[in-house]
Amino acid sequence: MNDLPIGSGARPQVLIVGAGFGGLAAAQHLAREPIDIILVDRNNYHLFQPLLYQVATASLSPNDIAWPIRSILRSQRNTTVLLGEVNGVNTAAREVVLRTGSLHYDFLVLATGARHTYYGHSEWEQVAPGLKRIEDATEIRKRILLAFERAEMTDSVNEQQRLLTFVLVGAGPTGVELAGAIAELARKALASDFRRIDTQSTRVLLVEADAKILANFPKQLSTHAMRSLRRLGVEILLGNTITACTNEGIYIGEEFVPAATVLWTAGVQAEPAASWLNAESDAQGKVLVNEDLSVPGHDNIYAIGDAAHIEDEAGRMVPGIAPAAKQTGKFVAETIACRVANRASPGSFHYRHWGNLATIGRHSAVVEIGGLRLRGYFAWWFWGIAHVYFLIRARNRMLVAFEWLWSYLTFEHGTRLITERWKPRTPG
Amino acid sequence: MNDLPIGSGARPQVLIVGAGFGGLAAAQHLAREPIDIILVDRNNYHLFQPLLYQVATASLSPNDIAWPIRSILRSQRNTTVLLGEVNGVNTAAREVVLRTGSLHYDFLVLATGARHTYYGHSEWEQVAPGLKRIEDATEIRKRILLAFERAEMTDSVNEQQRLLTFVLVGAGPTGVELAGAIAELARKALASDFRRIDTQSTRVLLVEADAKILANFPKQLSTHAMRSLRRLGVEILLGNTITACTNEGIYIGEEFVPAATVLWTAGVQAEPAASWLNAESDAQGKVLVNEDLSVPGHDNIYAIGDAAHIEDEAGRMVPGIAPAAKQTGKFVAETIACRVANRASPGSFHYRHWGNLATIGRHSAVVEIGGLRLRGYFAWWFWGIAHVYFLIRARNRMLVAFEWLWSYLTFEHGTRLITERWKPRTPG
Repeated sequence: MNDLPIGSGARPQVLIVGAGFGGLAAAQHLAREPIDIILVDRNNYHLFQPLLYQVATASLSPNDIAWPIRSILRSQRNTTVLLGEVNGVNTAAREVVLRTGSLHYDFLVLATGARHTYYGHSEWEQVAPGLKRIEDATEIRKRILLAFERAEMTDSVNEQQRLLTFVLVGAGPTGVELAGAIAELARKALASDFRRIDTQSTRVLLVEADAKILANFPKQLSTHAMRSLRRLGVEILLGNTITACTNEGIYIGEEFVPAATVLWTAGVQAEPAASWLNAESDAQGKVLVNEDLSVPGHDNIYAIGDAAHIEDEAGRMVPGIAPAAKQTGKFVAETIACRVANRASPGSFHYRHWGNLATIGRHSAVVEIGGLRLRGYFAWWFWGIAHVYFLIRARNRMLVAFEWLWSYLTFEHGTRLITERWKPRTPG
Repeated sequence: MNDLPIGSGARPQVLIVGAGFGGLAAAQHLAREPIDIILVDRNNYHLFQPLLYQVATASLSPNDIAWPIRSILRSQRNTTVLLGEVNGVNTAAREVVLRTGSLHYDFLVLATGARHTYYGHSEWEQVAPGLKRIEDATEIRKRILLAFERAEMTDSVNEQQRLLTFVLVGAGPTGVELAGAIAELARKALASDFRRIDTQSTRVLLVEADAKILANFPKQLSTHAMRSLRRLGVEILLGNTITACTNEGIYIGEEFVPAATVLWTAGVQAEPAASWLNAESDAQGKVLVNEDLSVPGHDNIYAIGDAAHIEDEAGRMVPGIAPAAKQTGKFVAETIACRVANRASPGSFHYRHWGNLATIGRHSAVVEIGGLRLRGYFAWWFWGIAHVYFLIRARNRMLVAFEWLWSYLTFEHGTRLITERWKPRTPG
């Protein structure tokens, strides 16, 4: 394994693993420091995850919500971007180990993010994919669109009903947004596209173990969201858990529901950063960090965003949302800059909660910002404008604004492409 | 295998296989006829192939140049669109055989298109993919982008040079357009994105067996295109053939050229429509058809577009371009409509050649329309406007116009996403 000599060697080298919201924020806040930065990611793009569900439901294309990392950081001359998959950390040698070599660090920032978890039933993943990466989104888009295509092909009424049943497991923002989007896709965008099936008869089930949907939202907004989803025809099953997932359908408690498409939006499992360090982690695999987000026993290693277990002053977990990840990235950047300059470090991380947003469907969203609570029409416009604003580049803002305006006016979903491989299936 | 009862049964049923330019034109020209139409394609979208090379070179996203077939034909009430892969034709029973069932036809239109051929060396496909489908384009985009990423990672100068060498086999319009686009990508869009490699040192080789590039163009335009490509730094090797393709590089005649990326744009092989019918075909697998494009011995089966061997009055092959395919589609639609109505059929197909277009790079294209020959700046604008005009839907016209305008002004390529799976590779 050969060392990759990168950087001048004269300046401290900060290695950031992961170019999500946290890692990218850390890199950007170190732009003017006398530091060499290496940003490693296994993808060549930064992904705007909050809109990923719109790729999965054929409203946006991957290209609208992802940008080459190199292109974001092209003018940040102290930063080298590398495409690579990290396999481990050699803390004694201060090296991160990749398949193709190892990389030296003086400071290491682990911004490796999280995936979903099946609570010990990883065999369910084949049946019920989760939504964290672009590949997940195009796979889910394929499954949703193929379900309608196959329903159009079959003569069996039972099979048709099974194909037109969509189950979402978990009613956090992603589950709610997917449920609303699938219901609208079936009832509006696809309504006049098929000849043999009535897409209006599509069933969308949202299954949640908790007693309410959108657990992090105030009760009043969660109730409003539930009413809006029901108006779209979504069936909501609260206090229910999945006991089995099969290719034919799922068991909700004792009851079997025939369903061709099951999507998983429950549970979070951090990527294996903790195991690279033999560091202590919580039940979700998140590294238990010090107040300055450093990893106990490794004062030059930080974990941020979804990779870290971070609590706010009240002892509540900091939520796994983009603004939180960005705050942690900015914080460790400042800490490292201070340490390199021998200035006093900011000390301990304080999370500032801006709010929660979720969209349900056309003209319907729930928003909680500070004391402000919005729902319905205005919340929906607020949600849309906020998301366009936070997209990283002007080009993507315009593309997304155009795609949205277009489907707003025409009810069309333009990106209904099945680009992943599919296999014909003999109707059951 | 179960029959799929589609259509009223009372009206003649026209089954069209393939929703490329030919098949789609045939369906659209039968919109107002007292006929039931079934259009089967193995993809759920119609693809605007002339711009596929721009997806492969990260200028456009798949979504910009593909549209759901259902959505194009949603208001054409006599037409049912089915997603399916055809395995054969039972001419005695008048049925087309799919994995999931069989479909009756009264008239059958085979618009199955063509792929590239390796002239008996199908093992080269792994090394040197061709460009006909969206999957090809995203695969080629991945290979091109990964080559630069890997070059940035390696310490070996030889390996770096190999990674930054791109070979195009075949100098028809696709080869020429890819060569120009890769050269521009390397020299402009990527120029300031990397830290350890100089993308300006990228080698692009265009290898052609013939004595000139763009064989179908007048000599003066072909010479102009050659000059323009050379100005972009493309090396053109005429009168040369590939004797071997390996993962390390290719043999051009006796000479070995180390190259990580080889793309194949030579040769055309029709999809296996001829074998379904046991019909006679030419060397490229194209069905030999009668003057009315019907298949000898099957007066209710037609082959159109790249599926058929069609000659013009002078005995030259009708070229495999979109306008030609559309003309054949429209012609068989008229023929079938006349036969159904017991009117006199149009008789024999006459190809009308409108012209040839190819773009080379920014401000550079060659255009031949009737007697008119354009090159350079005006040809380039003409090429762009013509292509935007021929995109099927207003939405895509706007998206493509926006993407082009954006990269024209900023020199950025927005769709540089590696969304296909890739494997880390130990530098050689």
